[in-house]
Amino acid sequence: MARPVIDFWYEFASTYSYPAAMIVDDLAAAAGVAVRWRPFLLGPLFKAQGWDTSPFNIYPAKGDYMWRDMARICAARGLALRRPDPFPQNSLLAARVALTSAVTPMRAAYSRAVYEAEFGRGEPIGEPETLVDVLAGLGLEADAVLAEAQSDEGKMCLREATDEARGLGIFGAPSMVTADGELFWGHDRLEEALAWACRGGHDIL
Amino acid sequence: MARPVIDFWYEFASTYSYPAAMIVDDLAAAAGVAVRWRPFLLGPLFKAQGWDTSPFNIYPAKGDYMWRDMARICAARGLALRRPDPFPQNSLLAARVALTSAVTPMRAAYSRAVYEAEFGRGEPIGEPETLVDVLAGLGLEADAVLAEAQSDEGKMCLREATDEARGLGIFGAPSMVTADGELFWGHDRLEEALAWACRGGHDIL
Repeated sequence: MARPVIDFWYEFASTYSYPAAMIVDDLAAAAGVAVRWRPFLLGPLFKAQGWDTSPFNIYPAKGDYMWRDMARICAARGLALRRPDPFPQNSLLAARVALTSAVTPMRAAYSRAVYEAEFGRGEPIGEPETLVDVLAGLGLEADAVLAEAQSDEGKMCLREATDEARGLGIFGAPSMVTADGELFWGHDRLEEALAWACRGGHDIL
Repeated sequence: MARPVIDFWYEFASTYSYPAAMIVDDLAAAAGVAVRWRPFLLGPLFKAQGWDTSPFNIYPAKGDYMWRDMARICAARGLALRRPDPFPQNSLLAARVALTSAVTPMRAAYSRAVYEAEFGRGEPIGEPETLVDVLAGLGLEADAVLAEAQSDEGKMCLREATDEARGLGIFGAPSMVTADGELFWGHDRLEEALAWACRGGHDIL
């Protein structure tokens, strides 16, 4: 039997994607599930429903709750939490970089490093300098990677990923999709998505 | 030491409040926590942020996901699920009834019965006839209860509960609030709220 797999869809500006990104590989390994790391942009999906910023900014009670909830989650997981300013950060370049040929084989490590910079240390991930540091930490040649990320092909890769996410019914991050197309939304549904992937959940409902 | 307690804030029109309502007393009993059942209205809170219906109707991708997620949750819990039409149902009368003097001592049983009618059998809980059946099933004199529910005092009780929910930072349902004011949102956070209540979580963060 083929090893079960989940697609882990994440957005670098998304708060809840941070704790999910820090634990998904460990949880999946324990469950015997392979993880495909799938960066995308929430901005275009939000714009399509009339939002020009994070819903956590548009709805203050929800935003207040989210930051408190993040503090609880990060404390429980032993993760540092520092709120980046402004929030949300511009995640366009970080996402394009994640899809480059040099970063792809180490996309998980790159993505965790970006989240640690952004939400662990409050660094501006929209600034190329931050990403240069992250790439250097992975032993990568930052200039070449950034050039590929900002090429026409690099831009198209991210547009296609975002279109694919929309087509899967994704509307928030993180989201997990199993091989049979089942969608799970939220960092607190990782275990449920992995369990579904393991049992081939399509015959459950 | 006093027994820990949580306030369980719920909205009769809220889909996720249904599975939460069906399990909260059992989970709380196992954890040694007392539950105060606190009905309120989400409508006024949604209106204040510019929504005139459920966000699950306003944002179709989110709505599609919610109904699929509800199907998974109800299947896993052995709960019937039938989508009421229209959705959301008008929950005003059901909530006022929950706060009457006759229903209050059996508010949990009444509330579960309303949810089973609405989401288990798809019955219109905005219609007095549905509530008359529910009340009769509990051995209550429906006419007197409905008269109290629709009195000025009955209306004021629900307004005050809704104002209190808003003041606690509540923006969705179900929500759980511990004695030290910690807020948890979502049916999937019941266990976390109960654990917080048990350990007096205010010294954790």
